This record gives sequence, structure tokens and C-alpha cells, in this order.
Amino acid sequence: MKVGIIGVGTVGASVANILRDNKDIITARAGCVITPVIGVVNNLSKDRDVSIELTDDIEKVLNDDSIDVIVELMGGVEKPFEVVKRALEEGKAVVTANKALLAYHRYELQDLAGETPFEYEAAVAGGIPIINALREGLTANHIQSIRGIMNGTCNYMLTKMINEGVDYETILKESQELGYAEADPTFDVGGFDAAHKLLILGSIAYGIDAKPEDILIEGIQDIAPEDIDFANEFDYSIKLLTIAKKIGSEIELRVHPVFIPNSEMISKVEGVMNGVSVIGDKVGETMYYGPGAGGDATASAVVANIIDIARRGKGSPMLGFESSHGEDLKLMSKDNIRTKYYLRLRVVDKVGVLARVATILGDKNISIEKMIQKPLNKTCAHILLSTHTSIEKDIVDALSAIEEAGVVTDKPVMIRIED
Amino acid sequence: MKVGIIGVGTVGASVANILRDNKDIITARAGCVITPVIGVVNNLSKDRDVSIELTDDIEKVLNDDSIDVIVELMGGVEKPFEVVKRALEEGKAVVTANKALLAYHRYELQDLAGETPFEYEAAVAGGIPIINALREGLTANHIQSIRGIMNGTCNYMLTKMINEGVDYETILKESQELGYAEADPTFDVGGFDAAHKLLILGSIAYGIDAKPEDILIEGIQDIAPEDIDFANEFDYSIKLLTIAKKIGSEIELRVHPVFIPNSEMISKVEGVMNGVSVIGDKVGETMYYGPGAGGDATASAVVANIIDIARRGKGSPMLGFESSHGEDLKLMSKDNIRTKYYLRLRVVDKVGVLARVATILGDKNISIEKMIQKPLNKTCAHILLSTHTSIEKDIVDALSAIEEAGVVTDKPVMIRIED
Repeated sequence: MKVGIIGVGTVGASVANILRDNKDIITARAGCVITPVIGVVNNLSKDRDVSIELTDDIEKVLNDDSIDVIVELMGGVEKPFEVVKRALEEGKAVVTANKALLAYHRYELQDLAGETPFEYEAAVAGGIPIINALREGLTANHIQSIRGIMNGTCNYMLTKMINEGVDYETILKESQELGYAEADPTFDVGGFDAAHKLLILGSIAYGIDAKPEDILIEGIQDIAPEDIDFANEFDYSIKLLTIAKKIGSEIELRVHPVFIPNSEMISKVEGVMNGVSVIGDKVGETMYYGPGAGGDATASAVVANIIDIARRGKGSPMLGFESSHGEDLKLMSKDNIRTKYYLRLRVVDKVGVLARVATILGDKNISIEKMIQKPLNKTCAHILLSTHTSIEKDIVDALSAIEEAGVVTDKPVMIRIED
Repeated sequence: MKVGIIGVGTVGASVANILRDNKDIITARAGCVITPVIGVVNNLSKDRDVSIELTDDIEKVLNDDSIDVIVELMGGVEKPFEVVKRALEEGKAVVTANKALLAYHRYELQDLAGETPFEYEAAVAGGIPIINALREGLTANHIQSIRGIMNGTCNYMLTKMINEGVDYETILKESQELGYAEADPTFDVGGFDAAHKLLILGSIAYGIDAKPEDILIEGIQDIAPEDIDFANEFDYSIKLLTIAKKIGSEIELRVHPVFIPNSEMISKVEGVMNGVSVIGDKVGETMYYGPGAGGDATASAVVANIIDIARRGKGSPMLGFESSHGEDLKLMSKDNIRTKYYLRLRVVDKVGVLARVATILGDKNISIEKMIQKPLNKTCAHILLSTHTSIEKDIVDALSAIEEAGVVTDKPVMIRIED
């Protein structure tokens, strides 16, 4: 079996090198020799740690009838979509690690692929075989929820903030120096990377077709030392969580920071590691843990997909369903989310302010579970509180009303609690 | 696709009921309707919570050409081996949850099955799709180690002992009352159940053919309150761990209690839950967590296998290898295990005893890392110590020498440390 790699960066080089370094055991497992024969790069003059032929001519690879599998590692959305379409038209199997491509085009790709193998294990949670688990291991279950820590950058930063009391700006700078965060970190810290992965899992669990712009995505940029203190006080961790949940015939898909009790197994996923907890109606909770990024870890998943294709061609349906299951599942409106909330209000420290806040919350049927008030200086105080289960729209309305009432000096901050 | 279930106890009933309750989503995922048509039981007069036809005539099911898949849930070794052989001869696919059957006959069954699907996800770690992960998700890797908590009974007991200071006899009695432990608990607490599962994983990781009697199996029966104190003092958990490791061209396969640092992810697997940590040379550590037992959780894995067969027939090679990978791997002799050790010695409390113990250890090249001496009564004391990395044979010889020297009042206890 011959493999062409389009995009030979860190992951692409690892794919070629794993196929070379672990050739004996891969051959024994796959039942045939898998050879990476060529890689496509933009810049041929750049030094790369690979021993395969390189070209800057994509067409040469796509038109080569001897190549059985195309590994797409270009990044981006529309350009790789065109390349992958061409590969499928040529009858070549495709393996990709490109979550953005799948976040936007997975259903079109499923149609285009038909009986041609199209695999993408590395697109979600890097080296953790979570696609495999969800698409094959848990198929007997109605999936009740998926909760994932799927962005290592955010988890590294939040772990440092919680464990060492480092503030957001300091840890962001450190993460950039360590190469964990990009110069423009928005894609990671804003929750978009995790959202792409969530959409893919949402399809396999629920067959739901949604795009990033359809779902609630919030990042970790507003988390402040007071929130960390609150978490430590009440034995919570703060995690950027991707959440997919089935509530009746509605599916929640959302990405945002949460307070989560330290007793939950997924709260124990620290640093750059990823973890995904899945609750099925029959199996209960299973969790999958491992490295979500890195050249070799990601390439491990890419190569596993190539081996799958060598063994069995198209094995399971690309997005987990052979046919529609008839249940008419709809994406839940953001307004209808029901959860517990934490609110941080910077208030003017004068008589009647707390009463005013409490009244506004009460008017919206929001009841308070825990509260801490801390003076900030002579004129201001922080009110930190958590609510019992409330409706998102009520919380949003209450926060607007609190702002309009002129009792807060800054925009209120809200973080959901995943209890 | 029609399914016959041989053995309709808790798991068998769950298999039939899941196929009925989740029929819509299973049909959508599998691409065909999967119907459990008949179950074989010994005692037809016993009430069972299933809506399928029951018979006590195995032959009727094996000879029924309309049945595509046989689910074997009889328990035992030789009887199910005969039944499964017959099913394969009739060209029926087989799904089993029977770890003992596989511990003894997996290679014969692989040969007998040939191109007929033979699946067994539920045989290891119940509802956790660990076979799937190891056989498909991690195939790009040389597996460096597998460390599993795969017996919920032991893990429940050890968790209670560590967290609540309950002693072995008390917690065993409680576990029996709760139904977590059998009247004769030896199979669980002696490590044999976990060993069966380890042998299966050892085959998929390393292609190594070993039987229970070939490997080191120790149970948790000798763990005493002093050991728990030592664990708590030095921030260890105590777990019954299954260990498979590759050291050069030798494979270690062993099951025994260990001290393991609380910083390790797998040490956080508590109560009846199971967890398996796998380290691959490329991906690094991934971990799989979930329920290792229970009717629905185990049946979830059985049904996933049936769906796999409906989708793709024989997908991956039964034991993970299409062909021998040439590397001549041998089971490591127990004598050559190298690890750290904890020793508990009940000594006569008189001048020179500690020197005598230290001398014997030194003569065997065993160096001490940590030590606590605690008086027990007027004449006796406990010496609790941990060693630096040592060789198993040296430890065993040293313990014999210590016994022969007459300085201990009881047989010394040794627990390995997994650091």
C-alpha cells in the first residue's frame, strides 16, 4: 500500500517516520507493507526531517495511480476540501487530521466518499482513539453526554492558573514561549479549536449537522484570580469543556469554561493532556485520556487509520451511521440551556446594592446557592455567587438588568457550573 | 442479522434487552436489523427478565441455519470451547465475554475462526472498549507497557482500605454482602480474573502466547493496615495492577498488588471502576476508564461487537496481528523482574536486628530508599522499608535469608512499587 502525504510539517514528517521506524510491527498488524512514497510541500528548499521524496506539485501525487492513500495535513478549510475531493474522485482513500475541514464539510465528504475509506481519528483529541471508541466501541448506547477537555493549550493554562495562582496574561505569555500557544492564540483560547472537535463528536453521537457558527463558543480569556479563588474555595477545577448532551429530542452543543467538581474523573485531566468522558445509557461513564497534540501522538492516530484501511477498506460508516435513525433531533437554542451558574459582579459598595442584585435574580427565578462578598477597595466590592439550576436566557436577562440598574462598575462575568 | 445467546444470566439478558430497547439507533448504526431470536439456558423454569424464546437445547441453536451470530456467555473453559468450536464449524460468527476461555484457548480459536468473525471486547474491562483501542487505535506503536486495574472487586476493597482504613477481612465481608465479591472470592482477590484479562491484552500488544500458569499472579489477601499506613505516609495508592511490559526482547506479564504514586493518572481509578493505561513508543500514555463489570456495561461491549460484525464482517485480525512480526519475544522469567520493593518485617525488638537485616539486604545488592521502624509491643517491632530498583530473585533470596536468620517472627511481606 502506497501513501502520499500532503503537507509535511511536524505531523506529516512523523507519519512518514513512524511508517519507516515501526515498519516491522505495522506490517505484521496490517498484513501488508505500507510505504510512504511522496510528500507535498509548499517550500522545497526548507529542511525537513524525512526520508521520503518531496514535491511541490499536488497534481503529480493526485494523478499517480500507484498511490492508494492520501494523507491530508495541509491545514485550512477550502483548499484541503478541494484536494480531498480530487483524491476521492481518483478513488484514493483519504486520511486527515484536519478538524476545521470536518467541522465545515463532514457531511459533504461522507457523501463524496461513498464506499471509499475516509478516516480522521487524529482530528479529535490527537493520539486518543476517541473516534474509534465512539463510532465502534459504544454503538450499543444512546449517548447521553460527551464532555471533553480537547484543547491542551487551554488546559495547560487553566491548570497553571489553578495550581500555581498564575494570572491569565502571565501564563499566556509563558505558553507562547513554550510553543503551546500561537502568537495569535484566539483559535485555542477562544474555544474555536475545541468547537471543531466537538462538532465531529456530535455527528457520531447524534447524527447532528451543525457548523461552528451554530453553537455556543466561549473562551477562557475572562477568567480572573477571583474565579480561581472561588474554585479553590469550593473544591472545583476550571476547565474549558466541550459539551454534547441529549435532552429529550434536543441536542446541546457548547464550548465554554466551566467550574467542575474535583471529584469528577475528567477534572483530573491536567496540563496539556486531553480527556473525553462519554456517558451511554447502557454502559454508564467511560473516559479516554491522552495527548491531544504533538507530532508523534497525532501521527500515531493517522497511521492507525492507514492500517485500518489496509486491513478492511471502508470499515465503519464515516460518521457512525449507516442510515438516519429517524429520531428528529434538533440543536437546542442557546437560550434554553439549563445549568448552574457562577456570577462575578464588581459592585459599588453601598447600602442596598446586594438587595438590588438579589431582587433582580429573584425576579428571574434564579436562586442563589453560595455567595461570597469581598471588599475590593473603599468604594467597590466583589460579589461572587453560584446559582441553583437556572435557564440561560434568565441569567442573560438578569445580568443585563443588573448592568442597567447601575450597581456594577464592570461588565458582570458568568461561568457555567458542570455539576 | 439473527443472534442466538448461549447463557442467559445477567449479561445475556442485558444483551437481549439492549438489542430490543435500543433497536432504532442500533439499526441506524449497523445498517441492518439485529434480532436476538433465542437464548439457551440450563434451567427453563427459572424466571428471567427477557422477551426472547428460551430453550435448553444448545444443538437446536447451533444447527439453526438462520442464526448468524452466537453470543457465548456460559462461563467455564472447556464446555464453551466445544460450543464455540461447533458454532465456528457451522460458519456462525462468535461473540464472547468469556475471559477464561480466551486465557486458555485464544490462539486455537484464532486458527479455528479463520475468516469467520470472532470478537470478545467484553472479556477485558467490561464496558471499556480497550480491545478496540489496542487492536486498532494504537497499532502504529510498539507498546512499551500496559498497566491495568481490571478487577473491580479488588479495586473497591483496596479503595475502602486506603480511604477509610477498613481492614481486609471487614471489607471482604462487606463486598460479599454487596454482591461485589463471591462467596469464594479467590478468583477475584487472588488475581486470577485480572490475569486472564492481562493474557488477552498481552497477545494483542506483543503476540505472546502464555497461559495463567506461566505468569506471576499474586492477590491482595496479605495487605495489612501497616501497608496502608505506609502508602498514606508516602503518598502512594495500593492497586491490584496487571502489568505487561517490553524490556528488550522479553515481555513481563504479571499481576500483583503495587504501591503506585498518587500522581499517576491510573492511581485515580477508584472503587469498582476499571482503568487501563497504555504507553506506546509514539503516542505516549493513553488511558481508558470505565465500568469493568455489570450486566448492561458488559452487554454494551457484546452488542458493539455484534454491530461491528454486521457492518464489516471480520474487521481486524482477532488477536491484532495478520502475521508474525518476526521479533522473537519471550516471556521474562519471574526471577528477572526489576522494580522497587516494599518490605514489611515483623522483627524481634533487640540489639543488632536492624543491622542484621540491613547486612543481608546489602549482601544481595539491595539498597534501601525509605524506612520506618515502629514498636509493636514489648518484644516486637515492624520494619517497613522500600528499596531502590532491585532484581526479584535477589529480593526473594534476601527474604529467605532473613527468615533463616531467625530475626523475624512472621513470614516477611513484599509488595512491589510501580514508580
